[in-house]
Amino acid sequence: MSKRIVVIGSGAAGMSAASEAKRTDKDAVVTVITEDSDIAYSPCAIPWVFEGRTSWSELVMHDAAFYAKERDIQVLTETSVTAVDGEKKMLTAGGKEIPYDALVIATGSTVFIPPIEGKDLPGVFGVKTVRDGKRLESALKDAQNVVIGGAGVIGLEMAVALRNAGKDVTVIEMMGQAIPRIADADMAAKVQERLESMGIRFVMKAPIQKVLGTDKVTGVTAAGVDYPADIVIFATGVRADLRIPKMLELDIGQLNAVVTAPNMQTYRRGRLVDGVYAAGDMVQCQSSVVSGPTMSQLGSTAVKQGRVAGRCAAGGTGVFGATASPWVSALGGIEIGGTGMSAGLASWYGIRPVSGKATGLTRARYYPGGTPITVKLLADPVSHRIIGAQIVAGEDVTGRINWLTEMINHGVTAEDFAVRAENAYCPPTNMVRDVVLAAADDLLRNIEG
Amino acid sequence: MSKRIVVIGSGAAGMSAASEAKRTDKDAVVTVITEDSDIAYSPCAIPWVFEGRTSWSELVMHDAAFYAKERDIQVLTETSVTAVDGEKKMLTAGGKEIPYDALVIATGSTVFIPPIEGKDLPGVFGVKTVRDGKRLESALKDAQNVVIGGAGVIGLEMAVALRNAGKDVTVIEMMGQAIPRIADADMAAKVQERLESMGIRFVMKAPIQKVLGTDKVTGVTAAGVDYPADIVIFATGVRADLRIPKMLELDIGQLNAVVTAPNMQTYRRGRLVDGVYAAGDMVQCQSSVVSGPTMSQLGSTAVKQGRVAGRCAAGGTGVFGATASPWVSALGGIEIGGTGMSAGLASWYGIRPVSGKATGLTRARYYPGGTPITVKLLADPVSHRIIGAQIVAGEDVTGRINWLTEMINHGVTAEDFAVRAENAYCPPTNMVRDVVLAAADDLLRNIEG
Repeated sequence: MSKRIVVIGSGAAGMSAASEAKRTDKDAVVTVITEDSDIAYSPCAIPWVFEGRTSWSELVMHDAAFYAKERDIQVLTETSVTAVDGEKKMLTAGGKEIPYDALVIATGSTVFIPPIEGKDLPGVFGVKTVRDGKRLESALKDAQNVVIGGAGVIGLEMAVALRNAGKDVTVIEMMGQAIPRIADADMAAKVQERLESMGIRFVMKAPIQKVLGTDKVTGVTAAGVDYPADIVIFATGVRADLRIPKMLELDIGQLNAVVTAPNMQTYRRGRLVDGVYAAGDMVQCQSSVVSGPTMSQLGSTAVKQGRVAGRCAAGGTGVFGATASPWVSALGGIEIGGTGMSAGLASWYGIRPVSGKATGLTRARYYPGGTPITVKLLADPVSHRIIGAQIVAGEDVTGRINWLTEMINHGVTAEDFAVRAENAYCPPTNMVRDVVLAAADDLLRNIEG
Repeated sequence: MSKRIVVIGSGAAGMSAASEAKRTDKDAVVTVITEDSDIAYSPCAIPWVFEGRTSWSELVMHDAAFYAKERDIQVLTETSVTAVDGEKKMLTAGGKEIPYDALVIATGSTVFIPPIEGKDLPGVFGVKTVRDGKRLESALKDAQNVVIGGAGVIGLEMAVALRNAGKDVTVIEMMGQAIPRIADADMAAKVQERLESMGIRFVMKAPIQKVLGTDKVTGVTAAGVDYPADIVIFATGVRADLRIPKMLELDIGQLNAVVTAPNMQTYRRGRLVDGVYAAGDMVQCQSSVVSGPTMSQLGSTAVKQGRVAGRCAAGGTGVFGATASPWVSALGGIEIGGTGMSAGLASWYGIRPVSGKATGLTRARYYPGGTPITVKLLADPVSHRIIGAQIVAGEDVTGRINWLTEMINHGVTAEDFAVRAENAYCPPTNMVRDVVLAAADDLLRNIEG
């Protein structure tokens, strides 16, 4: 009999799992169950619709009919899983009982909106799904003042998009810097400066205490000050969606996310659960920088994990490695990216990193169109291992971040990197000595000094 | 007494050595001796002047006066070293005797022009120096038909520049593919196709046998066929300039280039020569892919080696590691790059590599402006170590080549890469799963299959 594989969730992890399961076992019957109406898109794409670079229909390229016809995968949209019986391997969804031989849970995360007064007023949004996005789009038609809660990457991307659409945008952030946790203050300041020059207003060190309004939003109170708002968008981080794992009593780790083996199989009371896998924003990963778990919650990580989960659910083998969680964001003509730990996160782990920094250009000095680039590297002061890197430039951040991720994932020291790292040279695409190498030199000097 | 450090050669290696020597020992008296009239530029820049992207004056940003004033380095231009007495540590240059405590030889390479009839006729050029370039520029004013001998990277970059300037350009190549030795035929074909669509004519498998003309060039004969030409540019590779090493009886290796220790110190009959270093196009390097030497002859390698040689000449320490020699070229709107070995070079070493290949886009599928990208990976069939990679795309090749170089330099296997490699995701700068990762999957399938 064909193996029945059920995937819960239709994001990057879920759809990757479903496709890979089918690729691994052509005879498997693969079913995806999702509460969403749209499938197979990445939430990171949503700001780019508001920016006018793409549309809802381009973003959601494949629908359930496509998956049924082209991949022989059944997708049940707008369907909630209300119960799972792990013993009988049977789940209840949309009022029907659905048996499974293997289960991949990939329900992702939900936007964390602080439990404050007024948070449920009309005009308050969290942007995670296309459905949210479309509702926000129509609400924005009559709005001029937008408050964005949280100066993380998604908050800033939305701020830029809405500013470019002519709105008055105020970003209110609890911490003292933009992109806290994953970026260092000096690097984030470059981005904030650029966004301020576009007319985006920043209010820092100001937790949002209250959403104002009676029938609908009229403003927010943050650190005791009122700010007018027709729309409030919370981009205050996401939390793993643990509804299904809790139904199955799966082990939840110290980061409040699902614990998995390297093949994405889940645990219950310390023992592997036969046939039950989890992937994406809802699981905690192994950090490639320090011993212990980390939350990755990136689309690229979700795809990698989903593929491993799908392959293993279908009887194949696979391993998801430790992660440095590289990320890049494009904001108002500049790009910022990072990998491994920021200085702030490192100090949280008791590491006081040594840093090295260099600036230069993204093209040969005599080649037109180059932009300034700043590269910052962080090393553990004991082992001299490089534990983090961040880059701000007008272009070409992503390739360098992936390059530095490869280095971090291999445990390279500053000394080794300074000797071994090489860069290709092409006048239109970089300097003869890439700024990454110059940053490594500065790091070595600071280690020695 | 201050240490007297003499550097012979004013290219990427020489000027890097001089600056680094001065940085290491502020009291050193550093002198650069060069036959060139212009200093501190990279020959890779020359095609971009013809392309109209930069000018001779922008390219040569610093002159001897700058080095004297800003860095306290004396540069003697248009000066030949005619003798070196290694015993007395004394060289003769421009008729004067110049003593040294440490010597860095960085005279680079010269264009190899095949020893054929007519090679010295007016209208025949090799493009290596700004002086060559300026002479060519003025000769081109009255020329329409240009033959370029050699379809390597420099030949093709010149072909594109001159075609864009309205010339009729014919590239004549001895081998059966463009960019032989460092690129695979399938990848090079993509570039050739693009250049043909611009109107550049290719004649393959045709060694140039004769340059035609009496007072000046009128054409060439290649594989028995005559091609008209007002100008012939030889871009048929470079050879190490061994004049100074031969004066000092330094050891020359099997690749006909100077043998050095990891700190760039030279040898004589197997023993290190006190105080004599060499760097750049004239030395053979350790390959990071196979045991044994390789020729790198890249500007980026020259800078790295020059810095090590300069530091060590000034009494510091440094090591130049093994090299994968990453390169990138931008040609008519597309970019091609590679690192490690091509399939052809691997077979020359008796390795029949397994390959993996994937195509995709340089941006998210829904984000405008993305271009096709093809990534090819090569692995040794025994160890599964990745030994080479090549990429063709409309943008963003360099960062990926540096990423893959880091991987090759760490001896990563296909299996390990497939597990560990991660990419950042940003819709304007790549796909959620980078094409590099898809190529690694294809490689694994081909290894297993």
